[in-house]
Amino acid sequence: MSSQKKIVIGLFGFGVVGEGIYKVLQKTPALQARIKKICIKDPSKKRDAPAELFTTDYNDLLEDEEINVIVELISNAKEAYTIVSTALIKNKSVVSANKKLIAAHLPRLIELQRKHNVSFLYEAAVCGSIPIIRNLEEYYDNDLLQSICGIVNGSTNYILTKIREENLDYQQALLQAQQRGFAEADPALDVEGKDAVNKLTILLAHAHGIITDPNEILHRGITQIQNTDAIIALEKNVQIKLIAQAKKLANNKIAAFVLPQFVTIESQLYNVRNEFNGVVIESSLSDKQFLYGKGAGRYPTSSAVLSDISALRYNYSYEYRKLNNPENRNELSTDFYLKIYVSFKAWSDIDLNDFDFTEEIYCQRGRQYLTGVIHYEKLKNADWLSDNNVSVIVCPDGIIENTDTVKLKSTSLQLPGVEVLV
Amino acid sequence: MSSQKKIVIGLFGFGVVGEGIYKVLQKTPALQARIKKICIKDPSKKRDAPAELFTTDYNDLLEDEEINVIVELISNAKEAYTIVSTALIKNKSVVSANKKLIAAHLPRLIELQRKHNVSFLYEAAVCGSIPIIRNLEEYYDNDLLQSICGIVNGSTNYILTKIREENLDYQQALLQAQQRGFAEADPALDVEGKDAVNKLTILLAHAHGIITDPNEILHRGITQIQNTDAIIALEKNVQIKLIAQAKKLANNKIAAFVLPQFVTIESQLYNVRNEFNGVVIESSLSDKQFLYGKGAGRYPTSSAVLSDISALRYNYSYEYRKLNNPENRNELSTDFYLKIYVSFKAWSDIDLNDFDFTEEIYCQRGRQYLTGVIHYEKLKNADWLSDNNVSVIVCPDGIIENTDTVKLKSTSLQLPGVEVLV
Repeated sequence: MSSQKKIVIGLFGFGVVGEGIYKVLQKTPALQARIKKICIKDPSKKRDAPAELFTTDYNDLLEDEEINVIVELISNAKEAYTIVSTALIKNKSVVSANKKLIAAHLPRLIELQRKHNVSFLYEAAVCGSIPIIRNLEEYYDNDLLQSICGIVNGSTNYILTKIREENLDYQQALLQAQQRGFAEADPALDVEGKDAVNKLTILLAHAHGIITDPNEILHRGITQIQNTDAIIALEKNVQIKLIAQAKKLANNKIAAFVLPQFVTIESQLYNVRNEFNGVVIESSLSDKQFLYGKGAGRYPTSSAVLSDISALRYNYSYEYRKLNNPENRNELSTDFYLKIYVSFKAWSDIDLNDFDFTEEIYCQRGRQYLTGVIHYEKLKNADWLSDNNVSVIVCPDGIIENTDTVKLKSTSLQLPGVEVLV
Repeated sequence: MSSQKKIVIGLFGFGVVGEGIYKVLQKTPALQARIKKICIKDPSKKRDAPAELFTTDYNDLLEDEEINVIVELISNAKEAYTIVSTALIKNKSVVSANKKLIAAHLPRLIELQRKHNVSFLYEAAVCGSIPIIRNLEEYYDNDLLQSICGIVNGSTNYILTKIREENLDYQQALLQAQQRGFAEADPALDVEGKDAVNKLTILLAHAHGIITDPNEILHRGITQIQNTDAIIALEKNVQIKLIAQAKKLANNKIAAFVLPQFVTIESQLYNVRNEFNGVVIESSLSDKQFLYGKGAGRYPTSSAVLSDISALRYNYSYEYRKLNNPENRNELSTDFYLKIYVSFKAWSDIDLNDFDFTEEIYCQRGRQYLTGVIHYEKLKNADWLSDNNVSVIVCPDGIIENTDTVKLKSTSLQLPGVEVLV
């Protein structure tokens, strides 16, 4: 059994999570962790902790040799990067929940923790209280992961649940999410899928040893979801969920993207409602596994941060085993097809020629949709993908590897009416 | 980052799991683990591995100094104990999936691994592929666990699913489970709840630092479940599930038992079907979490065993942090009440006086039931609990701490007809 280390913490940020951590640590002396100093922005705010704990000077924490752990809980990713990288260089271990920072700077941060022989832990950054990173690191490191498929953003899931269950339109649902504290005043990061793709980027590093720029991964959010889409989902008995996905193809490369997806009732993700998160992991041996819990919020985030702090007592660090082991490392594929549902106002909104195959075409005054097969690269580069008149939703089992589908092109539906509708 | 150790394995047992491990290790040289010797019972059986690997002599493995890890996968718990304890004494780490062995001998096995500074890992013993022990050890060690509530036995869950979904009676469903390989030829350990209570015993050690004899914990299986119970569950829109449960009471003690339970649709356990397992963990910070996956079978068990072998490369061992930390250690309570549904053939099958309060009484020719509140100890010691004419199912939120319920006694239903029916 390993020995325990005393943890002396320098805390950046005293928002809901920071304050939560402070309070729990006070109540659990068994953790042998104390907060020595807290760096904040605005010294005039009233705070429920002794005034002498607070400072506005980074260096009071970073230059303090007694402080051996920095807990970084500020929202600004740029400042967070300065803090985290400086702390690592100064041989302090770091716990962070800042997915944007991590996704953007992972290679450098891995390098720094190795060089300085310290730990950088960030369980709270992905799916809040769900211990997904730890499990990928520890438990699935030897098993052959086939796919990870998750609802990793609570705000968008809350909005999609409201659209489904209360017949709200996107704007009404967003407003309700904001009023209830499940969405930010500026929700762009969440609703445009950027938060989800940051998380997927982190998952790819741990699950497959893939380091990539989140911007390189096809991602879209939920801003374009229409009530007509919701009605069709109801008719088809599927749920629309924003899914971050990484699936191993037959060539051992990984297909990864963040897109809205039709989820059937057979999937455990079907029942993930409101602000909850859930991840289905498929592997050769353990088959299907599902992890479910709260993805954000004061206590779930505190819970993950505390687990990381606790792990530091035992000098725990991520091994990035797949990254370090060339045999297990995978790479991303851009050569696969997606079967998607696309709805739009007018046929001129999309380019039918982008599709290799159309299976279903439905026209009604005001809204049309089709389902069809499109190459990943074509979709990623399509102008119409970012058009808010166009809603793209991946069909169940929507990843298609077999290029034979291309041959099906000749059997595509070609409605005579389509021309007229353009 | 810690250094990796080369693993040389002595394997006991070459059944489906043993053979699975052998094959996977051959295919994954990256694991740096090889099987040097395999001890089997019957040397005449044809096996798909080189003959020189096999022996029938324990000592060929236990006395081999190069072998540093024993993987124990035999069914006989007595022999397994001899093997495991001898291996630990000989400074070899051990991986086992034998819940009966572990539940029965945990204190001694913890002592041995400490004394000899080796590891004893057994993730496969509880919920197969679901990494529940690792998560309780690593992730929830600092969070305040409120309750663990799980479907931990795949055979009984398969049978209950068939009773529910195909209107089979218990015997028919059992037969089908046996034919499909989801239940043993001798299903007693599973269907009588003994397997589940062994697993609960192991969970209690990791979740709450409680070491107890499994026989001390109230447990019953599913042999007594009647079709009439299944019909009532359907009417009430609940599922009957065999639940292993450990819940923290207001006095910080733990209520623990294994009993069939009515599970409402709000619970994640409602949708755990067939041979799958699922565990809901509630804690102060992370709120509700749910882990789901296959609880048994060749590959899920292999997956967990391989994770343990892989962890040994990094000298991983369970810390039993709650056991070692008196402040976090809890104890079992026997002083609480349960709200239960009880069905029976005749009123003489049970003793109404055992109940502090009856809420519902239903009589029909051939089968009657009541719902009522009973003290845990009364139920545990009731003769009628082991009567196969009597079916006991815990109601949703069935743990009642408040002894005020006793005062409600005077308001109990007292049907005049009850006397007549005796």
